[in-house]
Amino acid sequence: MCATDIMTLGRIVKFQALLARSLSRTYSAVGIPELTQFRHNVKRSDYANIEDADITVFESIIGKRYTLQEDLQAYNMDFWHSVRGNSKLMLKPGSAEEISAILKHCNERKLAICPQGGNTGVVGGSVPVFDEIILSLGRLNKIQNIDEITGIAACEAGCILENLDNKARELDLVVPLDLGAKSSCHIGGNVSTNAGGLRVVRYGNLHGSVLGLEVVLANGQVLDLMSDFKKDNTGYHLKHLFIGAEGTLGVVTKVTLLCAPAPQAQNLAFLGLPNFDAVLKTFRSAKRNLGEILSACELIDAPTLQASLDHFKLNTPIEGFPFYMLLETSGSNGAHDLEKINHFLELGMEKGEIIDGTVASEARKMQEIWKLRELAPMALGKDGYCFYYDLSLPLRDFYSIVEVLQERVGARATRVTGFGHLGDSNLHLNVSCPAYTDELYHIIEPFIYEYTHKLKGSVSAEHGIGFLKKNYLKYSKSTDAIAMMRDVKHLLDPKGILNPYKVLN
Amino acid sequence: MCATDIMTLGRIVKFQALLARSLSRTYSAVGIPELTQFRHNVKRSDYANIEDADITVFESIIGKRYTLQEDLQAYNMDFWHSVRGNSKLMLKPGSAEEISAILKHCNERKLAICPQGGNTGVVGGSVPVFDEIILSLGRLNKIQNIDEITGIAACEAGCILENLDNKARELDLVVPLDLGAKSSCHIGGNVSTNAGGLRVVRYGNLHGSVLGLEVVLANGQVLDLMSDFKKDNTGYHLKHLFIGAEGTLGVVTKVTLLCAPAPQAQNLAFLGLPNFDAVLKTFRSAKRNLGEILSACELIDAPTLQASLDHFKLNTPIEGFPFYMLLETSGSNGAHDLEKINHFLELGMEKGEIIDGTVASEARKMQEIWKLRELAPMALGKDGYCFYYDLSLPLRDFYSIVEVLQERVGARATRVTGFGHLGDSNLHLNVSCPAYTDELYHIIEPFIYEYTHKLKGSVSAEHGIGFLKKNYLKYSKSTDAIAMMRDVKHLLDPKGILNPYKVLN
Repeated sequence: MCATDIMTLGRIVKFQALLARSLSRTYSAVGIPELTQFRHNVKRSDYANIEDADITVFESIIGKRYTLQEDLQAYNMDFWHSVRGNSKLMLKPGSAEEISAILKHCNERKLAICPQGGNTGVVGGSVPVFDEIILSLGRLNKIQNIDEITGIAACEAGCILENLDNKARELDLVVPLDLGAKSSCHIGGNVSTNAGGLRVVRYGNLHGSVLGLEVVLANGQVLDLMSDFKKDNTGYHLKHLFIGAEGTLGVVTKVTLLCAPAPQAQNLAFLGLPNFDAVLKTFRSAKRNLGEILSACELIDAPTLQASLDHFKLNTPIEGFPFYMLLETSGSNGAHDLEKINHFLELGMEKGEIIDGTVASEARKMQEIWKLRELAPMALGKDGYCFYYDLSLPLRDFYSIVEVLQERVGARATRVTGFGHLGDSNLHLNVSCPAYTDELYHIIEPFIYEYTHKLKGSVSAEHGIGFLKKNYLKYSKSTDAIAMMRDVKHLLDPKGILNPYKVLN
Repeated sequence: MCATDIMTLGRIVKFQALLARSLSRTYSAVGIPELTQFRHNVKRSDYANIEDADITVFESIIGKRYTLQEDLQAYNMDFWHSVRGNSKLMLKPGSAEEISAILKHCNERKLAICPQGGNTGVVGGSVPVFDEIILSLGRLNKIQNIDEITGIAACEAGCILENLDNKARELDLVVPLDLGAKSSCHIGGNVSTNAGGLRVVRYGNLHGSVLGLEVVLANGQVLDLMSDFKKDNTGYHLKHLFIGAEGTLGVVTKVTLLCAPAPQAQNLAFLGLPNFDAVLKTFRSAKRNLGEILSACELIDAPTLQASLDHFKLNTPIEGFPFYMLLETSGSNGAHDLEKINHFLELGMEKGEIIDGTVASEARKMQEIWKLRELAPMALGKDGYCFYYDLSLPLRDFYSIVEVLQERVGARATRVTGFGHLGDSNLHLNVSCPAYTDELYHIIEPFIYEYTHKLKGSVSAEHGIGFLKKNYLKYSKSTDAIAMMRDVKHLLDPKGILNPYKVLN
């Protein structure tokens, strides 16, 4: 499982270093979060308990070295300190065959399993709730092939996104997925959460770019849905069942992915806008005038920018506006792209929709600007604790929900802010505060999901349902659809051993 | 159901007119094709027979006017005279609720149903094999909404692709799907066959662009999987089960689709190349140098071009080459695009990969060139009868299969040709002859599919499996995957009433 946007800090700050720092902070100052089972009052289901004989079986499959029973705290917890499980066993298999043997045994014994990739998820999907066995994909990290002409890449699920992207760039290709956690998240986790990120506006979602999968089912069957082709209309398109299923229907072990040609030039505009209406008009103009070169279209509100400035030593090229937009272009001719951007900016400034702005074409300059947006989630966390929400909303109501929530929580919050992938109607809504309190939690939830439901929005745009949102799935999916999800779950995992307590109630 | 590429004549020649002309030719000169059940020696399954009481029920649901028992020949046959059923009843419901009531009754009675859209399919998926009730989607043709800013369109399944595209263009948007049959194929059929077509290289496939569906299940349940968002990670992504399921898992009744910004300028290059290696190098250069503006990348071999020239009054700007490529660009700045094309052409000609060519920017000129490619399938049919194949192949073996088949069929064929969507590794392989013969059929099949299997290709790139390819599904999908397809079919349609004899054996 893998966080998508909430950690968009990737290329700039190495996620691993932050993780280590953050975890040490947790253990000392903030403290280890309460166990999920207590904080959320969950009851363990009737899974078997791990016995010595099970350990012997696992050791015979993958060896003692990869059958870990100690030092599992970091794997029992998520990066955001929002959930904590109590697993006493982590298995680190090295192949789909080993995963198959492990699952076969677990299925026979009714032992619960929590598959774990880079553990960068935001909704508690990648850590145990109770004592589920943690199944780490980290050793399945081989890049098998990247075809220079077609751009089709095949790799194992535990391959780190950034590693695959680096390899692709050697061939003048680019992985069509970019997100802050790229230096630690796994491709298999990206697929399992249908991760979105910064470039969806350009390259679309993973349902479009994933060409094939290998998946190990709960009973140990290795299902070969691999494909080397963009087009393969042979029977039901089963692979999509596993894209976004958050490891509850099967364990993704291999992926083929369509890479795009690497852009020859990039530009980044950082703009100040007078009101939200101007934001929408600017987005529309960008779609028309930047068309095929637009590769990111992000919104940042004033309190979000302020959080970044407060907690990191950053400079903003412009300030004093209620809204900022970050527009990136990626194209095959830098001069052409710059000409298009200038034309677009002239139009916007003439109409008074864009008040001020800056355009960067140099890598270092662009990185500095990106930091203002990418460090925002981390900055908000530095206020003490932050409640993060990830919603899809109709553009006309995209920002009003932030204002409604500002009013509702009042002085209890340090900041209530909104930023996100405007180009995909995807808002990240945040409430930061000195420390987690049940009072604030209950003021925000379920209100925020009910409000989203009223606007006919989605309660999870790109983060998934995981553990934390499963009570709110009903706000975005009909009873019939949820019933069919249950039928599919029962078909593929009748004993419910795969990532229990997640997605479905 | 809907043909994808095999009828790429769309914008130029109105499909309906051709259909009428072609059908009249069939009835008189060529004659009505043999019934599928006899030509392919199929046995009817134990579905109920339609009784007077059933007719009364259907009339009570949709009225007498839409309960048709006569003049069904055109709906029992496909455009390509490859299959013919013997249905005695066609129902034309006007809403998902009416379809729900019809299916509920059929499911209770175990009456078989064949959903039919524009009936432009190529694999016998959209016509009955025996006496299945034809369920026409033609009256569900409303465009419900197109959002100018987000580009999200919602329409009923029977909406004709071209009508939706015309409406989108009024808002400076374009439907991300373009194929020859666009003037008669239905959006619901496009979705049900995961139709590909000419612009996949630019806009990707329908799994990426379809945002939501409404589907009526076999038991009459109306399943709401609609969404107004690009991002909606709430539970299993069930809609993908119905994309490409060819009407065997449910009847698609509504679709939301993400439209792209309409291009402001288009250019079309028609190039002559000395050998297939030069074709591959030119494709690679196009991806790099035309990058984000490349919107079609088609291959035409010499015998295909000759067929177009023989049967239609067409002019080719260049001739005498073994291979031709058709490269289209769509961008937001015509001058920029032309500059990129010129640079790309200079590079190719310097290296001797491109020998000769022409570039058109004017609409009429571009249409003339497109005709050379788009009328090819029709031209091959005019040789008498044509066996059409639609394969995905590794690019290194993309054309060798044509040469192998040329040798194998020898003088029995009028022509053996290859053309298609090189940019998507999708070859259309064709064997034309004076008239259908069993001898030629058995010389080609299953050889062509076994050969494709050996090359690890796909036996159906964009046309689907339908009736005609179901024996060959095993060449592209594993036994386990097919078994899971059967499980999914059984889950959603336990009595097997939806489009029987199709996709799965």
